[in-house]
Amino acid sequence: MDEDNIDFLAQVSWNSEGLVPAIAQDHSSGRVLMMAWMNRQSLRLTLEKGRMVYWSRSRGKLWRKGESSGHLQLLREMRLDCDGDTLLLSVEQVGNIACHTGRNSCFYRRYKNSRWETVDPIIALPQSMYPQSNAK
Amino acid sequence: MDEDNIDFLAQVSWNSEGLVPAIAQDHSSGRVLMMAWMNRQSLRLTLEKGRMVYWSRSRGKLWRKGESSGHLQLLREMRLDCDGDTLLLSVEQVGNIACHTGRNSCFYRRYKNSRWETVDPIIALPQSMYPQSNAK
Repeated sequence: MDEDNIDFLAQVSWNSEGLVPAIAQDHSSGRVLMMAWMNRQSLRLTLEKGRMVYWSRSRGKLWRKGESSGHLQLLREMRLDCDGDTLLLSVEQVGNIACHTGRNSCFYRRYKNSRWETVDPIIALPQSMYPQSNAK
Repeated sequence: MDEDNIDFLAQVSWNSEGLVPAIAQDHSSGRVLMMAWMNRQSLRLTLEKGRMVYWSRSRGKLWRKGESSGHLQLLREMRLDCDGDTLLLSVEQVGNIACHTGRNSCFYRRYKNSRWETVDPIIALPQSMYPQSNAK
C-alpha cells in the first residue's frame, strides 16, 4: 500500500524523520499518560488493531505498547492538532499502568523548589511486569 | 547565568536542538490544549513569570504565549516524564482559548472513517484575537 496516497495520513505533518509526537491520555481519568512517537506504519497499525502501536526511536522499530508487560492501550479516539504535527490519543490503559517504572503515568515527577520530586506511587514492580528481564 | 549548572534543567533530556516537547493541559477541565517546544531559556522564564513561554521553532524566537491575543497560560504545575524528554504543564488558560483558530484546544480534529473531522466550535474569531493582522 502506498501510504502517502491515504489522505488522512498525508494531512499529518510528519517531521524530517517521518515521525509525529503522539500524546496518550487516559479516556476516563483524563491523565496524560505518556508521549511517544508514531510513523505512518504505526499509525495505520494502531487504527487496524485498535490499540496503540508507536515507533521506538531508540530501538528503531515498531513498539506494540504492552507486548511485554500486557499493559496494552486500547484506542478510543484520535485527534490531530491545528498545524497537523501532533496526535492526541484517548486510550483505555489496561492495568492502569502506562509507565515502565510501574506507575500510572510517565509524568510522575513534579517540579518544586528547583527540583523534580517523585510524587506518584509505583503500582506494580517492574520485575513483575517484565519477568524475562530477570534472566539477565 | 550558566543554565547547565542548574540541576533541574540538566535533568531534562534536551534534544539535539536544545528543545523539549511541552504539553499544556487545562488544570480544571483536564483537556490537552496544545503541544509546543521549550528551550532552557523559555523554561526558566516560564518559572520566573509564572506563565507559559515557549520556543517558536518556525520563528526561531521566544514565544510568550498570549502576548498578541491576551490568552495567557498561567502555570499551575510542571511535570517531567520518566526519561526526562517531555514536559507536562498544567495551566490556567486565560479566555479559555489556547488555539490560534479561536478554539479551546488545538486538538479540534477527530479521526473518523479515514478523515479528520472538525468537532470543536470556534469561541472567538481569530480577527478579534489578533486585530493587528487586519492591517495586512
